[in-house]
Amino acid sequence: MKHLLSIEDLSREGIERILDRAASFAEVAGREIKKVPALRGRTVVNLFYEASTRTQSSFELAAKRLSADVVSIKSTGSSVEKGESLKDTIQTLSSYDPAAIVIRSPQVGAADLVARWSPAAVINAGDGKHEHPTQALLDVYTLRQAMGDLDGRKIWIVGDVLHSRVARSNILAFRRMGADVTLSGPPTLIPRGIEALGCEVETTLDRLPEADVVYALRMQRERMTQAFVPTLREYAERYQVNAARLGPDQLLMHPGPVNRGVELSADVIDSPQALIGRQVEAGVVVRMAVLYELLAGSAAPVGVTDDALAPAEALR
Amino acid sequence: MKHLLSIEDLSREGIERILDRAASFAEVAGREIKKVPALRGRTVVNLFYEASTRTQSSFELAAKRLSADVVSIKSTGSSVEKGESLKDTIQTLSSYDPAAIVIRSPQVGAADLVARWSPAAVINAGDGKHEHPTQALLDVYTLRQAMGDLDGRKIWIVGDVLHSRVARSNILAFRRMGADVTLSGPPTLIPRGIEALGCEVETTLDRLPEADVVYALRMQRERMTQAFVPTLREYAERYQVNAARLGPDQLLMHPGPVNRGVELSADVIDSPQALIGRQVEAGVVVRMAVLYELLAGSAAPVGVTDDALAPAEALR
Amino acid sequence: MKHLLSIEDLSREGIERILDRAASFAEVAGREIKKVPALRGRTVVNLFYEASTRTQSSFELAAKRLSADVVSIKSTGSSVEKGESLKDTIQTLSSYDPAAIVIRSPQVGAADLVARWSPAAVINAGDGKHEHPTQALLDVYTLRQAMGDLDGRKIWIVGDVLHSRVARSNILAFRRMGADVTLSGPPTLIPRGIEALGCEVETTLDRLPEADVVYALRMQRERMTQAFVPTLREYAERYQVNAARLGPDQLLMHPGPVNRGVELSADVIDSPQALIGRQVEAGVVVRMAVLYELLAGSAAPVGVTDDALAPAEALR
Repeated sequence: MKHLLSIEDLSREGIERILDRAASFAEVAGREIKKVPALRGRTVVNLFYEASTRTQSSFELAAKRLSADVVSIKSTGSSVEKGESLKDTIQTLSSYDPAAIVIRSPQVGAADLVARWSPAAVINAGDGKHEHPTQALLDVYTLRQAMGDLDGRKIWIVGDVLHSRVARSNILAFRRMGADVTLSGPPTLIPRGIEALGCEVETTLDRLPEADVVYALRMQRERMTQAFVPTLREYAERYQVNAARLGPDQLLMHPGPVNRGVELSADVIDSPQALIGRQVEAGVVVRMAVLYELLAGSAAPVGVTDDALAPAEALR
Repeated sequence: MKHLLSIEDLSREGIERILDRAASFAEVAGREIKKVPALRGRTVVNLFYEASTRTQSSFELAAKRLSADVVSIKSTGSSVEKGESLKDTIQTLSSYDPAAIVIRSPQVGAADLVARWSPAAVINAGDGKHEHPTQALLDVYTLRQAMGDLDGRKIWIVGDVLHSRVARSNILAFRRMGADVTLSGPPTLIPRGIEALGCEVETTLDRLPEADVVYALRMQRERMTQAFVPTLREYAERYQVNAARLGPDQLLMHPGPVNRGVELSADVIDSPQALIGRQVEAGVVVRMAVLYELLAGSAAPVGVTDDALAPAEALR
Repeated sequence: MKHLLSIEDLSREGIERILDRAASFAEVAGREIKKVPALRGRTVVNLFYEASTRTQSSFELAAKRLSADVVSIKSTGSSVEKGESLKDTIQTLSSYDPAAIVIRSPQVGAADLVARWSPAAVINAGDGKHEHPTQALLDVYTLRQAMGDLDGRKIWIVGDVLHSRVARSNILAFRRMGADVTLSGPPTLIPRGIEALGCEVETTLDRLPEADVVYALRMQRERMTQAFVPTLREYAERYQVNAARLGPDQLLMHPGPVNRGVELSADVIDSPQALIGRQVEAGVVVRMAVLYELLAGSAAPVGVTDDALAPAEALR
């Protein structure tokens, strides 16, 4: 594995390998000194063309906890929106000979372009409506920790599937791990032909009780102005996941940040069946695992005796 | 001491303990290698909802000189102005298991909320008009270095007390250390009932010669539009601290950045009796001391033989 | 050498010394662990009053690869445009006792002022239309790697010389190294009297085939509105460096970022005679060399056995 561009590139074994590695990094995260020397002296570039406190700080921290040097570049706006400009930027950054480039872009396919232009390992941190593979990996990791294997589990993804790269990556990852995936939301927000990915579509939440896991998507307010849904209130009436709809044994997930009172009601957000906090927590260890797999050689065995997990003294 | 939210929480002994620690870090700051391994592998999150070059870079450097990993998040604007959003942000950041969260916010009480929501040690780097405790600590530190104990010293705080969190924290800290505090400024800019904090109020500078220390506050231009004072020129005529008003033995302080020619005249800013540069210098060592006290256990004895001050070789 | 403010301050020997040092750092850049402990525990402040992904990330990475602690401050806008404000900012930053301050500013002479106000070593990363010395050094470094000594080489600098600090620094550096420099561009964009720097001026590209090296400058679109050139298209017709004008043995340089199709055609940008990528690559090692020369003592001998190049294990 040279890059992480899409969940499509990963086999079930590949996913499991990353999750096992993440589980061993979780042991490091529990130490007082949360750092290992694995990537010391190597450079990780974070190139974010969209604002993202959450994903960016998570990647930054993952790289720092592996002792890498991190250069973070945030760019918004017109000068970088054309492919040619992105190419020039990547050529510039590649001249630093970074071990990895983490890229988030509003353009579908941006990470693939970067992988073509740069010798660095490339991690897709979100490319337009296309994919967000580390989000899917941390979601599978969180679920596996909470319920074990996903084989035969029923997972419902609810909300604005149309504009969601998270939905796309998660459908692929949940399917790969053996789960049954059902999408539900307003018909205007479910892309036509999405069943080709191996999932079912429901336009109501009537059968929601069948789900083992309910994964609510973020409802973006700007969609309202585009008439995808009449009002947030009507959306919430029909599709909000709340205590009336969620059974006590169903697990609840959300990629964050949550619009409280829109896609989720306040009571379920803070309920014990919500895994939202554990998803964020998983973000750092899963990203450490991805960086480690790509940069420190996937040939290395996975386990706590691994060099990557050398005790903190090795840092001195 | 778990958090530093307000000067009110600190006893005189607590303040002295931090200042002694800061004095021992000043020795480190004088070395070529200005770094100690005390917080290696631990994470400090800087969360700034207001722009602040000065305070933010000072906290960032303090954490780095203690060998912590620093994640800085700057947010301005609407998406984080509601309490609920702050809560979600804090839950996200807490999932990184940071040792400390440093927060600056325009909201009074923001740091207290963070301390309620996060298991991390929380440092208030300014919350609205309420408090800015590390500023007060570095001011007391600077004064103690310049003149010894504050017992019985007369300190005048001059200017816009109404909008100043610095004034509030400093009144409390100076009083705790035994000084007599007098506030002076336009009546519109002195909060009613402020005497309850144990200070006196003067509406002119006539008795300014009695002061041992004159602490001028920053006059914010935007106040003009709100008719708190008629014009900056009239303010300066009545309340500017300048060579005509300042005696040669009086010490001068200001939290910065100075509006030259408004609250201070250029000649006094650059005079030897001005401690302004030393206040900024104190910022890094006092913030190192606060981080160390909160994170490395206040049980540790204070002194140069301390582990926290291990020679630089320990970093190799 | 205490500061790097201008190429004018450097002798030929001084330039060669920096380039030799850079060449030895290039060896480090080729290692997996691209880091040396030379500036461990020392602080480098990056103060950028103009946006610059390229130069800023290059300085940041250079300092990190020397193991320095980096504090980056980006400021744009009005509050820092006045000399007085800059002075206050520098006094604040100087109180951190940084080993070096790297400054970019739209003001001519800003770096000189910083050097007057701060005890730190100051590196000019661009001051208005005046100078950008590290760009010139990395350009000389790149050329020396590509063609050996510059003595008697003919270098043409083409384009908007008037607004270019890069042009000014490069004329001085190329001349110092013994090259013959010719400037070419629209007469409105060649400053009067520039020949005094020891270069020739041509208003057409007719004699371009005589050049050993063609250095194209970035054409800034905003110049159009100021009527320096009629249109970008007319500019390109007369002054674009393209395959029709560039001979196969001529080397091509550009400080980046390139306006494709304006000052350079796409075919020459990606041709093997273009050194543009190698210029950017040179940026990190040349900036490491400058920081090292200023901070770690220019008395140290240059060579691979140098302490600065201690093997990575020294970092552990």
